[in-house]
Amino acid sequence: MNNPTNDPDLRSWVASANAAGTDFPIQNLPYGRFRRAGTQESWRIGIAIGDQILDLKLAFGKTVWEAAVQSSLASLTAGDLNAFMAQGPSVWRGLRAALSQALREGSKAQAQLEACLLPQAQAEFSVPCEIGDYTDFYAGIHHATTVGKLFRPDNPLLPNYKWVPIGYHGRSSSIGVSGQSFRRPRGQIKGEGDTPLFGSSKRLDYELELGIFVGQGNAPGESVGMEQAEQHLFGIGLLNDWSARDVQAWEYQPLGPFLAKNFATTISPWIVTMEALEPFRCEFTREAGEPQPLPYLDSQQNRDRGAVNITLEAWLQTAAMRKAGQAPVRLSQANFRESAYWTLAQLLAHHTVNGCNLRPGDLFGSGTMSGPQADQAGSLLELTQGGKQAIQLPNGESRTFLADGDTVILRGYCEAAGAARIGLGEVAGTVVA
Amino acid sequence: MNNPTNDPDLRSWVASANAAGTDFPIQNLPYGRFRRAGTQESWRIGIAIGDQILDLKLAFGKTVWEAAVQSSLASLTAGDLNAFMAQGPSVWRGLRAALSQALREGSKAQAQLEACLLPQAQAEFSVPCEIGDYTDFYAGIHHATTVGKLFRPDNPLLPNYKWVPIGYHGRSSSIGVSGQSFRRPRGQIKGEGDTPLFGSSKRLDYELELGIFVGQGNAPGESVGMEQAEQHLFGIGLLNDWSARDVQAWEYQPLGPFLAKNFATTISPWIVTMEALEPFRCEFTREAGEPQPLPYLDSQQNRDRGAVNITLEAWLQTAAMRKAGQAPVRLSQANFRESAYWTLAQLLAHHTVNGCNLRPGDLFGSGTMSGPQADQAGSLLELTQGGKQAIQLPNGESRTFLADGDTVILRGYCEAAGAARIGLGEVAGTVVA
Repeated sequence: MNNPTNDPDLRSWVASANAAGTDFPIQNLPYGRFRRAGTQESWRIGIAIGDQILDLKLAFGKTVWEAAVQSSLASLTAGDLNAFMAQGPSVWRGLRAALSQALREGSKAQAQLEACLLPQAQAEFSVPCEIGDYTDFYAGIHHATTVGKLFRPDNPLLPNYKWVPIGYHGRSSSIGVSGQSFRRPRGQIKGEGDTPLFGSSKRLDYELELGIFVGQGNAPGESVGMEQAEQHLFGIGLLNDWSARDVQAWEYQPLGPFLAKNFATTISPWIVTMEALEPFRCEFTREAGEPQPLPYLDSQQNRDRGAVNITLEAWLQTAAMRKAGQAPVRLSQANFRESAYWTLAQLLAHHTVNGCNLRPGDLFGSGTMSGPQADQAGSLLELTQGGKQAIQLPNGESRTFLADGDTVILRGYCEAAGAARIGLGEVAGTVVA
Repeated sequence: MNNPTNDPDLRSWVASANAAGTDFPIQNLPYGRFRRAGTQESWRIGIAIGDQILDLKLAFGKTVWEAAVQSSLASLTAGDLNAFMAQGPSVWRGLRAALSQALREGSKAQAQLEACLLPQAQAEFSVPCEIGDYTDFYAGIHHATTVGKLFRPDNPLLPNYKWVPIGYHGRSSSIGVSGQSFRRPRGQIKGEGDTPLFGSSKRLDYELELGIFVGQGNAPGESVGMEQAEQHLFGIGLLNDWSARDVQAWEYQPLGPFLAKNFATTISPWIVTMEALEPFRCEFTREAGEPQPLPYLDSQQNRDRGAVNITLEAWLQTAAMRKAGQAPVRLSQANFRESAYWTLAQLLAHHTVNGCNLRPGDLFGSGTMSGPQADQAGSLLELTQGGKQAIQLPNGESRTFLADGDTVILRGYCEAAGAARIGLGEVAGTVVA
């Protein structure tokens, strides 16, 4: 049952991977796409280890790998993570085991692989894979309830919410990686009376979400049942679903959000694999009185181990704070398990139940992850009660929604007794005028 | 002003291109991606001419082209239409002029190019380009009004409709080309009381739409204004936005359609270029009392020539009809100009006004194109008044929604005095159990 690659006693010959509090110990080994900063080199696939990146293209040329591993590395040396994602869990597990062995203290591979490291501080990143389709779910029940209350105080959750993992299609072209800056969007905004105004959004917000990457796809017309759904999940990251609330309020009826969301979505550079999350899986239960999931969204495995315990945080650094050398301040902290009404497997099973085909590299957003308490909310819309109650920052500034120059940073990590800490890293994005 | 490639007196040495009623005279020259049927050859880009395809890969090797045309053909010989779409109108016009010359009666190129033809009947098709993102608009005002009446008899159009070109993101992975079959989707459907049912959709429908292909893209954060919008449009085809009405009714609040639509979307194989549509452009006006478009959706060019006169038709062939050798029956006919509340340029300008980046090959659906009369409706939902009034077919069958084995065929064409008829071809798709 216990996966040896998750053994908390493992240590790496990469010293920084053994530091307390690192996001990237040898038990993590997430995938990203990088190159040396400031160059026009082609993108390469790498593995985060401590504050370093193991360059899999360079590593492929070394003699430390068994033949089976060489063949899975081959699909990564071209910078194409999608082909590897398509190969499925046994290939993923095989490479992870080999990387874990090679990066351990005492490994004979150390001498060869030391030359394959690049400090993360010297790298720039792209989105980690080609994202064909991006789906944004709405699985955060506390978020849905709080936002619903702003519109319908007596009946915040719509009747379908506890039955249907609500989701909609987002925009893949405007997904960027941590470090993305984007212009404050313009658009139509409801005015007085029937005539809308046109201008820059005045209610620009972030949304704290988990990003979920599909590994193996499915053929058109073939549903993925709950028993197989986990086999199709490759891993997770952080996702900021930037939202222009005033644009959204005017445009979203009857077909959902469009220009309010599609100007930018920012994701973290590293995909933490489902295998690295194993020590943080836990049971998935519905509280008494809640509807039980329909059979196509239910399995014993999901009830036993469907949930994941992940701490998620949103931080803010304003332009004034940056200028004054002040560190970001934390706006909120929530837990994925407590925030999400549906498991990752349920999202995937639901998405395919009608025969919709997923492709390797497709991305899901979880929906905004807000905890049950008001100060655990994953968006300013919630934290400021729809913009009515400004947040006071330590430097004397205040915010209802985002100001130009604001940088929002999302962080995530898993901690549990008897397990190494696994970090998701962070995703930062900045609004410009 | 008059484009010589649209001269109605032009005739081709491909005899079938001169036949009355052909969709593909020498004035059309649409782009598609094909290979010889039943082979695993790589996909090639071709031009429809009469009942033939001019294979641009084979044609590239011939000596009939000037250097500038050779260079634009080079980006097509790899089967990659997107790279050509990215090059912009002057390149598109250059190749069109050369193809028009080469395919004319009396052209010296005939001897070399005759060997580059494949009968369309011997070809199979793929989607004509890589579609990164697919956006479905809701520009059919008669459709929106009729559907709105089913839910809100006194107030069918929401307050934003006449201001905002309503749209939402669709699924690109499940877009298929004419000939696509798909399984009847399953999903949650509203039951009696609060508990949904699970099963196959009983209210499966088609939607008659125009498909619009983006040529040149735009950078993130850069809006495309109305003066430039036409330069970013590559061409059009037909699009069937299959819809499971019962799934949609239960799932779509508050974020829009998802599983009700994303199981399949079918498009026609040929992209008819904006240049071929020039003789059918006409003025765009708002009726008295209608709100005028906001400035970012307005231009003199759009008022003068923004609309397009296109006839659109939906046809049905049931399994019983097919078995009996009976031809499809026409369910409805409408005109794009009369049906669409927004022009193609307005859809593109709106999509980018917030800085959303479009990429070459991105696809828009127009929304269901229904004319002002009840029998001009582009969906069964409308034709049957929400399923309450069955349609009687000539063979004695009747339909409220689609039955297994039904094939829906959409057709489109442009006709005007003093212009050659330009056809969009057709898109056929079949529901299977």
